[in-house]
Amino acid sequence: VFYIRERRMEVEYFVQRKQEIQNYLGNLFQAKQEEYDKINPLGRDLCRRLYAFSSGGKMIRGGLVALGYSLFKGEPENEEELRKVIQAGAAMELFQSALLVHDDIMDKDVTRRGLTSIFYQYAQMAKDSKEPEFYHLGESLGICAGDVAFFLGFEILAELDIPPHVYRNILTLVAKEISYVGVAQMQDVVHGGSEKNISNEAIMKLYLYKTGRYTFSLPLMVGALLAEQEQEAVGSLEKLGEYMGVAFQIRDDELGLFGDPEETGKPVGSDIQEGKKTLYYEYLFELADESDRKTLQSIFGSESVGQAELTYVRSLAEQLGIPAMVGGIINEWSDKARDQLQSMENTNIRFQELLSDLLEYTVARTK
Amino acid sequence: VFYIRERRMEVEYFVQRKQEIQNYLGNLFQAKQEEYDKINPLGRDLCRRLYAFSSGGKMIRGGLVALGYSLFKGEPENEEELRKVIQAGAAMELFQSALLVHDDIMDKDVTRRGLTSIFYQYAQMAKDSKEPEFYHLGESLGICAGDVAFFLGFEILAELDIPPHVYRNILTLVAKEISYVGVAQMQDVVHGGSEKNISNEAIMKLYLYKTGRYTFSLPLMVGALLAEQEQEAVGSLEKLGEYMGVAFQIRDDELGLFGDPEETGKPVGSDIQEGKKTLYYEYLFELADESDRKTLQSIFGSESVGQAELTYVRSLAEQLGIPAMVGGIINEWSDKARDQLQSMENTNIRFQELLSDLLEYTVARTK
Repeated sequence: VFYIRERRMEVEYFVQRKQEIQNYLGNLFQAKQEEYDKINPLGRDLCRRLYAFSSGGKMIRGGLVALGYSLFKGEPENEEELRKVIQAGAAMELFQSALLVHDDIMDKDVTRRGLTSIFYQYAQMAKDSKEPEFYHLGESLGICAGDVAFFLGFEILAELDIPPHVYRNILTLVAKEISYVGVAQMQDVVHGGSEKNISNEAIMKLYLYKTGRYTFSLPLMVGALLAEQEQEAVGSLEKLGEYMGVAFQIRDDELGLFGDPEETGKPVGSDIQEGKKTLYYEYLFELADESDRKTLQSIFGSESVGQAELTYVRSLAEQLGIPAMVGGIINEWSDKARDQLQSMENTNIRFQELLSDLLEYTVARTK
Repeated sequence: VFYIRERRMEVEYFVQRKQEIQNYLGNLFQAKQEEYDKINPLGRDLCRRLYAFSSGGKMIRGGLVALGYSLFKGEPENEEELRKVIQAGAAMELFQSALLVHDDIMDKDVTRRGLTSIFYQYAQMAKDSKEPEFYHLGESLGICAGDVAFFLGFEILAELDIPPHVYRNILTLVAKEISYVGVAQMQDVVHGGSEKNISNEAIMKLYLYKTGRYTFSLPLMVGALLAEQEQEAVGSLEKLGEYMGVAFQIRDDELGLFGDPEETGKPVGSDIQEGKKTLYYEYLFELADESDRKTLQSIFGSESVGQAELTYVRSLAEQLGIPAMVGGIINEWSDKARDQLQSMENTNIRFQELLSDLLEYTVARTK
């Protein structure tokens, strides 16, 4: 994850948590295969697909649960402590997988995490069985697959062996926060399909609710709750997560435009093809002259965006000085995050440092 | 719901519970409108749609939570008792709405509960905004809408003010059971699109996991858990629910073929158009001669099933004596349910009677 040689020991933390979450998911899906066999053979098959899909992620959310916990409690001291952190982290990863499974249907993305996306795996399977409506069948099975992953996430949260008040707080927080993601996603869908302009404010709200709070605040808060922290500490992580998350999302958009598909695992120009409303999109349309704006209109959201279109958008953005502007905004948010992190008291110095590294990685990452 | 004059007082029980759940949902969505406003305007709009959609249901699952509770505790004695029963019932209704919202996308059903289905409402909205991909946009927003309804269901369960062990049992049970529905639904999707035969056993498992356990066992068990019953009583209701649920589902298929669309709210011949694999389907293909089987093949799953096709299928079924056979199977399951109900001890006589009425209604209902 990190490429900072002297922090190699710290890097190990994330790698190890990912491995533990993956093991947890392996055992979970192993058990679920048997359980679902009583319903039909599709259940066993689904477990295999969901396990492979979940394993392909960076597991940043799962890692952040562990980090939120260790920030107050240090390294988990025994099996029991580690178990609950990993279990909650695995739940976060299942929610993320579920959201991505549904997302790929909406965006018609046929690859994800370097593999064929789940709905498209089913579509291919249906095509091989000569089903005339194979694509729709794939979408339908993808909807079910995402739903099951959501329910599994709630199931393992519900099985957490933790004190009642912590249990209640975590379940309520997770359900509430993930419903915000659903509402934010609706906006993303509507804007993706539409050619009308979108305000900077709407984009920032999307970043906050679709990524910032969900990807960073939520797992950090779950970790802090598992560490039995009070509202003040939990609220500090909520803010930190928002700042880090917005910086992360803007960097994500940057990688969508300037990143190397080999590294990001996203198809060339997919954000442009989807007509995704990012800060780049907003600035491009705001600053381009009329002729370029017309060209942009013909490119964003069009069926085929290739290397030529991508190169055009990239150079136009550079001519207009947009990367520097967006870079400045990323810095603003990461500065806020840095200040927030430094203001926190009574935290474990090693894990505060690790969070600080993660922040640096967030804004500098190439994948 | 019931049309038995002398039991009018009992009918009131369900009508009243539905009213209370509806009020609860009204307040919930009112509060959520404000909460979602901080994200985007689509959230408020979604609350309005989900409230209208949820209100249109029979709310049999919500009513069964109350019945499962009252079977042991009698009529709720105070506001607090009633509140938790209604809240858990409302959660069941939200899950059901969510499943239907996703189901309608899979089945391409444009009406539901006498109204335009949710995804199609969005598709129409997108069409009015001249979105070229309006249908897909409707599907995407429908996926999000269903997801949000699921999360809201978990959120209000998580907010239940009940003893820790009951709370844990309910949340685990619900998450587990609803994941089975997702897996069962996958089978329904695959069979719907396919022309290949399906075994009686696979159909019965589908009935058990997609309807029996979920629609009857689960809410009854949640009610019993709220009434702080032990595993034995909870397990009895689980069995009862399976028996009632299978009888209910077979009657549902019967209504899909022989029911009055005005009463059922289902479009004429929609089950046939979907190629839904029911006991009728299985028997028709098993018993028809080769010429009729070919005709059946051209009708089931075809794009346009009208009154003529429906009449043909109906009379063929009657000629082959299928309604009597299926009626016999319904009776077998309702007999099992009756025996199970009568074997239960320490239950409130009035509510046992009410459950017995519900059983009679289940097999005799016309909508």
